[in-house]
Amino acid sequence: MIGLCDVGPRDGLQNDPVPLEPGQRAALAGRLAAAGLGRVEVASFVNPRLVPQMAGAEDVVAALPAAADVVWSGLVLNERGLQRALATGLTEVHAAYPVTEGFARANQNTTPDAAAAETARIIAAAHAAGARATVTLSCCFGCPFDGVVDPGLVADHVARSAAAGADEILLADTIGAGTPGQAVRLVRDAIAAAPGIPVGLHLHNTRNTGYANAYAGLEAGATVLDASIGGLGGCPFAPRATGNIATEDLVYLLDGLGVRHGCDLDELIRVSEWLEGLLGHEMPGLLHRAGRFPA
Amino acid sequence: MIGLCDVGPRDGLQNDPVPLEPGQRAALAGRLAAAGLGRVEVASFVNPRLVPQMAGAEDVVAALPAAADVVWSGLVLNERGLQRALATGLTEVHAAYPVTEGFARANQNTTPDAAAAETARIIAAAHAAGARATVTLSCCFGCPFDGVVDPGLVADHVARSAAAGADEILLADTIGAGTPGQAVRLVRDAIAAAPGIPVGLHLHNTRNTGYANAYAGLEAGATVLDASIGGLGGCPFAPRATGNIATEDLVYLLDGLGVRHGCDLDELIRVSEWLEGLLGHEMPGLLHRAGRFPA
Repeated sequence: MIGLCDVGPRDGLQNDPVPLEPGQRAALAGRLAAAGLGRVEVASFVNPRLVPQMAGAEDVVAALPAAADVVWSGLVLNERGLQRALATGLTEVHAAYPVTEGFARANQNTTPDAAAAETARIIAAAHAAGARATVTLSCCFGCPFDGVVDPGLVADHVARSAAAGADEILLADTIGAGTPGQAVRLVRDAIAAAPGIPVGLHLHNTRNTGYANAYAGLEAGATVLDASIGGLGGCPFAPRATGNIATEDLVYLLDGLGVRHGCDLDELIRVSEWLEGLLGHEMPGLLHRAGRFPA
Repeated sequence: MIGLCDVGPRDGLQNDPVPLEPGQRAALAGRLAAAGLGRVEVASFVNPRLVPQMAGAEDVVAALPAAADVVWSGLVLNERGLQRALATGLTEVHAAYPVTEGFARANQNTTPDAAAAETARIIAAAHAAGARATVTLSCCFGCPFDGVVDPGLVADHVARSAAAGADEILLADTIGAGTPGQAVRLVRDAIAAAPGIPVGLHLHNTRNTGYANAYAGLEAGATVLDASIGGLGGCPFAPRATGNIATEDLVYLLDGLGVRHGCDLDELIRVSEWLEGLLGHEMPGLLHRAGRFPA
């Protein structure tokens, strides 16, 4: 069983040209949960002046339907965001920071060291409040500002996250530059650097390597994968980033491998079709147009 | 070193809505050779009434530039096509037939058994004329008419191709339905069924699994891959088929793995940009828009 988290309502919509109201975002999250997703990242508790698409995070959480079998979560980048997230009653927060100096400066006006320290405080405060806290390390496969990233640097930040008590550590290919050998190396090193802590991947398909990286990461021992319905997504701070890998395309691949995920593929395809209608434009996923095989 | 064959001038253009003149197709083949492709499938020697985009195969071959380091090849489906191909002076022909009854009937009004026998005659006649003859087995990963395909059936046709003297055997995911575990299984079985004969994959990215399948196939021992520049392609007989995996996107992945291929990635991107201009529409490959990383 793989831990599949749909980040469409957050990472997906954050970079879509069409803003959705909090009620629509909550409805999307509800449909994803109804399709079997065990985890959905529903909101980002950042300053809405910086990311206007994510405004109304509290309203999104308040509008979520009752769903017994899903863990809703929110992205938090600092302790102020954490307090907002906890105040909504969310029981899982996703901290994130870039491992590279250039991206840390451009994205959050900070440094990886300072962000790692802030993340450790977020984890401690989340745990003190009874919430789970995961860490996503950005730019592990390459940085749009600093270029190639040393795998040793990634492993170092994995170890710091583990020491800070992260409940789970995800390695993000923020700009979709990774290739499968890298995925294998980074996942293996992370498992070694964070013994006993689930390691996962957050992948973008910018250069058509996202699904190959997911497969390679699974083979190397990753047990958690982020994806976004329809392949929505991207990062406003990453030049020319395209969408996350699409949840339904990934689920089709997982089905072929016999990896359990808990989702209903036909329902995921219906959610993508509904969302395309809501947004009024095509999304980059392919399965919702091609259809499953066999039909 | 992987054997990379660009099938864009044939499988790509065959399914594009914009027909190109033989001189333009030869120019495309020439640009691919200049970008380092060691093998280019330049034409299809089928009845032009059935596939009008491929009309003028002889004119394409006659217009090819002199290029020392490339093997030009043509698709042949019967002995009449073989004679036409040999008359042009081509030194390599690609025979192809589907392993499934439904596709054989719909595509070529034949059966896999009859097509296997015809293919054996093509190989013998090609060899008698001093030409190389490869075999591509269609629908190995799934059939739009017959559904799921028994891997044992594929291995049986691989063994027949080997016994007939095929110089190389490619397993085609004609409708882009495959997943990586399947690629591993089919490649391993093919290597066992055709000892000493290079085994490869011909992949379509219909459901976003094409590049993962290429990676999985390489890991399993495939030494030949088809791709088409820009991800052009598809099959006019396969419902909703989309393009082949894109040559430049595959090359980017191979570079990341350290697999040698002989191509100049920047030049491949320029060929894709040029071809998009010629066709007047976007192609499905992503790398020629995203750019390589690091730049």
